[in-house]
Amino acid sequence: MKRKASEIIAFQGERGAFSEEATRKLLGQEVAVLPCQRFEDIFRAVKNGAASGAIVPIENTLAGSVHENYDHLLQFELPIVAETSVRIVHNLIAPKGVRFSKIKRIFSHPVALNQCLDFFAANPQTERISFYDTAGSVKMVIEEGLTDAAAIASSVAAEIYGAHILRRSIESDRQNFTRFFLVRTPEFARRRPTTAGAATQWKTSLVFSTHNTPGALFRALSAFALRDLNLMKIESRPLRGKPWEYLFYLDFLGRADSPVALNALNHLREVADFLRVLGCYPKGA
Amino acid sequence: MKRKASEIIAFQGERGAFSEEATRKLLGQEVAVLPCQRFEDIFRAVKNGAASGAIVPIENTLAGSVHENYDHLLQFELPIVAETSVRIVHNLIAPKGVRFSKIKRIFSHPVALNQCLDFFAANPQTERISFYDTAGSVKMVIEEGLTDAAAIASSVAAEIYGAHILRRSIESDRQNFTRFFLVRTPEFARRRPTTAGAATQWKTSLVFSTHNTPGALFRALSAFALRDLNLMKIESRPLRGKPWEYLFYLDFLGRADSPVALNALNHLREVADFLRVLGCYPKGA
Repeated sequence: MKRKASEIIAFQGERGAFSEEATRKLLGQEVAVLPCQRFEDIFRAVKNGAASGAIVPIENTLAGSVHENYDHLLQFELPIVAETSVRIVHNLIAPKGVRFSKIKRIFSHPVALNQCLDFFAANPQTERISFYDTAGSVKMVIEEGLTDAAAIASSVAAEIYGAHILRRSIESDRQNFTRFFLVRTPEFARRRPTTAGAATQWKTSLVFSTHNTPGALFRALSAFALRDLNLMKIESRPLRGKPWEYLFYLDFLGRADSPVALNALNHLREVADFLRVLGCYPKGA
Repeated sequence: MKRKASEIIAFQGERGAFSEEATRKLLGQEVAVLPCQRFEDIFRAVKNGAASGAIVPIENTLAGSVHENYDHLLQFELPIVAETSVRIVHNLIAPKGVRFSKIKRIFSHPVALNQCLDFFAANPQTERISFYDTAGSVKMVIEEGLTDAAAIASSVAAEIYGAHILRRSIESDRQNFTRFFLVRTPEFARRRPTTAGAATQWKTSLVFSTHNTPGALFRALSAFALRDLNLMKIESRPLRGKPWEYLFYLDFLGRADSPVALNALNHLREVADFLRVLGCYPKGA
């Protein structure tokens, strides 16, 4: 799925973030990237044409869903055209020439620090210090030329900032994956429909709300269950302006334009107050 | 539902946090409180006997669920014995004697600042500054004796720190409520069962996981739908150690010990890999 070099993909975080790893995995090494500060910024960059796509982390197998991004998928209406997942490998990274025995302070995002508790238990001589970003902590340690400090981040971050990996894969739990979506403009998705590809398995993502009546969610899910369409994920978010009512985000296995999915979507429309398909894309590895 | 004065209730945040308002609403003005830094600490305080209960924010109608607390409910096994909800009213609070026209800097938690965007648009002379806590920002402004600064927090915080409310209810969206659980030790819940009370409506909260097979969630929900038990909320969280599988947290309207609920729970047990009832409690207003 290589694109030409004129592509610019927006992602949240500094160069070398796990989102950049996901970008390379989906679109190859040659693609240009646009690092942004906030998640909202990456959607806005696509909307206003500064980027041709954005890489959106949507869930992590330890931390759960990135709920804010579900809200942005609804608000910005940028279709999902691909998914991938990246194993989160945390590395201890220091300026070249700094030896492990010299490390007294270790900087990283608090979530990353918390995912390396076994390493910290085994190395009580080191102090954990929270930083705003994993890759950003590598950048800082290198730019400041610290000789008693290291950062925890991806191997890509070490490469980008010319740093040295002191210890590889120091995360406590190897079952640590983040799933990412690639979103595009509706025009791009129309011009190059994902369903023109030759994938063997597809996923469809959608969002709906139900009438606030007993059994409403059950009836909504029956649209899929009665047709043997397999749900992969369901997530709820509050419905703004209607306290204690919810939007449901759902992924099912199947092509949105297959006869059985079209029937399921029609059935869901009958029982839902609101329904929007967010995208149909080849199932990631 | 007043308790005697020897009660100590743990909550997260500084004195005057919205959690304290929820505590007073459920247990009256005389109850002693134990402010804690992190959510985990309030569960631990009950577990180790430092507190006789904890007030747990579980969802907000704008921001969504407090997912971390779902994880703690599972891990600490403290039963839910009551719920309440508090309308989040943000007030502009300054030291006594400081006039509105003097305010240049406004401190609060970033979520609170973001919920007052209309106020900031109407008052461009003020600068927003992120702080770790709403009530904590009042405490700081008072302790430092700042004369050009204010904080955004609850009216209870203004009272506790002897501060002055310059503007009331500056939140942009009035549909801003947070729902709280009161959790106790299992011993306390056994000694004083909630179901001994005379409430007319009850809720039951539970958590389950399903086999990873097509239609599993649908079959699980059928245990409730086929018995006309009304689901109020469903929330998913990642299942640790099983990437891309989920735990489901569910609230239904009904007493856990009613015949129909017992049948539903038995039915759910047949189709679930794991099931635990987290509590049964009178439905909040």
